[in-house]
Amino acid sequence: MTLITDFGWAGEYVGALKGAVLRVNPNCRVVDLTHQVEPQNLLQAAFILENTYPFFPPETVHLVVVDPGVGTRRKAVVVKKEGHLFVGPDNGVLAGIMGGKESVLGYEIKERKYFLSQVSDSFHGRDIFAPVAGQLSLGLDPSRLGPRVRGLTTLEIPRPRRVKGGLAARILWADSFGNLITNLARREYGRELDTRPFRIKGKGWKIDRVHRTYGEGRPGGPIALFGSGGFLEISVNRGNALNTLGLKPGDPILLLWR
Amino acid sequence: MTLITDFGWAGEYVGALKGAVLRVNPNCRVVDLTHQVEPQNLLQAAFILENTYPFFPPETVHLVVVDPGVGTRRKAVVVKKEGHLFVGPDNGVLAGIMGGKESVLGYEIKERKYFLSQVSDSFHGRDIFAPVAGQLSLGLDPSRLGPRVRGLTTLEIPRPRRVKGGLAARILWADSFGNLITNLARREYGRELDTRPFRIKGKGWKIDRVHRTYGEGRPGGPIALFGSGGFLEISVNRGNALNTLGLKPGDPILLLWR
Amino acid sequence: MTLITDFGWAGEYVGALKGAVLRVNPNCRVVDLTHQVEPQNLLQAAFILENTYPFFPPETVHLVVVDPGVGTRRKAVVVKKEGHLFVGPDNGVLAGIMGGKESVLGYEIKERKYFLSQVSDSFHGRDIFAPVAGQLSLGLDPSRLGPRVRGLTTLEIPRPRRVKGGLAARILWADSFGNLITNLARREYGRELDTRPFRIKGKGWKIDRVHRTYGEGRPGGPIALFGSGGFLEISVNRGNALNTLGLKPGDPILLLWR
Repeated sequence: MTLITDFGWAGEYVGALKGAVLRVNPNCRVVDLTHQVEPQNLLQAAFILENTYPFFPPETVHLVVVDPGVGTRRKAVVVKKEGHLFVGPDNGVLAGIMGGKESVLGYEIKERKYFLSQVSDSFHGRDIFAPVAGQLSLGLDPSRLGPRVRGLTTLEIPRPRRVKGGLAARILWADSFGNLITNLARREYGRELDTRPFRIKGKGWKIDRVHRTYGEGRPGGPIALFGSGGFLEISVNRGNALNTLGLKPGDPILLLWR
Repeated sequence: MTLITDFGWAGEYVGALKGAVLRVNPNCRVVDLTHQVEPQNLLQAAFILENTYPFFPPETVHLVVVDPGVGTRRKAVVVKKEGHLFVGPDNGVLAGIMGGKESVLGYEIKERKYFLSQVSDSFHGRDIFAPVAGQLSLGLDPSRLGPRVRGLTTLEIPRPRRVKGGLAARILWADSFGNLITNLARREYGRELDTRPFRIKGKGWKIDRVHRTYGEGRPGGPIALFGSGGFLEISVNRGNALNTLGLKPGDPILLLWR
Repeated sequence: MTLITDFGWAGEYVGALKGAVLRVNPNCRVVDLTHQVEPQNLLQAAFILENTYPFFPPETVHLVVVDPGVGTRRKAVVVKKEGHLFVGPDNGVLAGIMGGKESVLGYEIKERKYFLSQVSDSFHGRDIFAPVAGQLSLGLDPSRLGPRVRGLTTLEIPRPRRVKGGLAARILWADSFGNLITNLARREYGRELDTRPFRIKGKGWKIDRVHRTYGEGRPGGPIALFGSGGFLEISVNRGNALNTLGLKPGDPILLLWR
């Protein structure tokens, strides 16, 4: 079972979540993916899930708890795809797995006998999602949890726009190296950027091609490359782009054809 | 086996601790609860332990290393309660499990044959607690480690006081969402706050009832609710109370009857 | 299998790495040592590996991914020593295990059939090191991966110098308690500092002997002791040396004989 949350490692939340899984299935292999999704950042959780689950073996249960609407009307769901099971709130955190042509089956989590005996209003991760995920790891069929759900909640992912003379993109977030991940997907724009001369200009720096590796260019110089998640990143060779280029998550990036 | 420490994830301490467990019992399932207890905050460690261990299956070994007095005269102990085993220094970190009516058995850890062959003065977590916890996970009876201990060290937990016209409480800490956890326990004050009109006033905000979920009230507005640990929290709907309400851990909170 | 990386816990990198291991060997017990090596700090990664691996049982696979030269010409290697296997880039992160008299066998990782089917230029941790480490955990002989390597890359570890009247040392880094770890090894200087009077002077403080435990001296006062990694540390009893002594990683420390 994998865990993605925005709980942070401090405090008791991660521990209580794991306990609630292991109480149901003491033999479950619980793997921390991250507990440092930015608080309540559904888009980031969806992105991390999309970019990690395909590397795990089928039959893995993926538990995703980023749940700002806990205790309100959002549904709790289990989704089955390619043999993987995904457990979380139906608020968009599972949006990243909805693409592709494989069939996706969703079920609402309603059967209270699989919950903790006392369900709080503020921590469904521990009281509902974790014990249900523990049951799924023991082989429970998701159809036993509740009715089929169609039309899971999706997210408005901000996408680049074509503007006069170029592309208007956006910085989604910075990774722990300070690399600035944009919303320009290789799938969509990779070929064009490889073949059509362009320029990105910042305060005192410019980039005019897509590099292949972080180690290219002169040390301290800015480069752009398609990162391991498939998006264009702005990076600094042996440095930290977030701290040195005057850009931060949310900022627009203008890419102009030359 | 669960781990609670104040080591932080940086550096070699967490790794060495885990190695010292796994060398004794390579099949042990080691589960990180947190390594981000505030340095030397015994009260926080005790609180996290109290709020996580009940969710784990019996026979779990809980290793708690927050140990500012390492190398001095504080005892090393193992405590048995409800089938769980707790290993740590006798400095108060185990105080949170001492309540209730279940019998609690404590033993001092003195038998050096279960320690690493060389014991340092500065890292008993690695050299004493971890190998002993490893042995316990293999089934060693805690009475083999040393003599019974009575009267484990307890902690002065700051408790609310009744003052003229209300309650004087205190903020214990902030969680990773910025929720401010106070020392007002639902167990003790829940019923009273539900039935007796009150008011908490801050700089530019006030709260006059206990909410049920984080999603209530207007976005950005302050709310109070009993959190998953059973204490009253001051929170901001879709926001961060720590950053926006002008309050921080240690600050007093005055709750006045209306 | 143990993991040491500089990925940080935020983002998808840790999760993708673990998935790429577990896809190959779903029964592998993956243990997080740290993902918070300072970005690209090869020396720190080497130090953490050196100070943790001896506590693990033989036949452990240690995966170390601190890889600023990813996608460039640095080699990928597997090293065998004392029954342990070490997987990582040949850029110095494995330098810490090269000392001692035990035989060390190194192999270059070249056999592409053990890689992910698509290898990116920016994330060899996920695409090469993790699946190879997964295979090693299943029993693959490292000689199957590629040719023997002699002369692995080493690191220039800054060492103390003898100067007129004393020793010129350096602060390597601070741990999560704010203890300042220097490059003065007990092995080399322990006996001398125990028997020869000395003094270290800072702004408003001085230290004139080696203490045994963190709890010695008056609260708030600076002390020096040989830490669990075998290096002299400057620490503050119940305090944080990094925040209060006016010293930081990289700073020189002058130790003068009295």
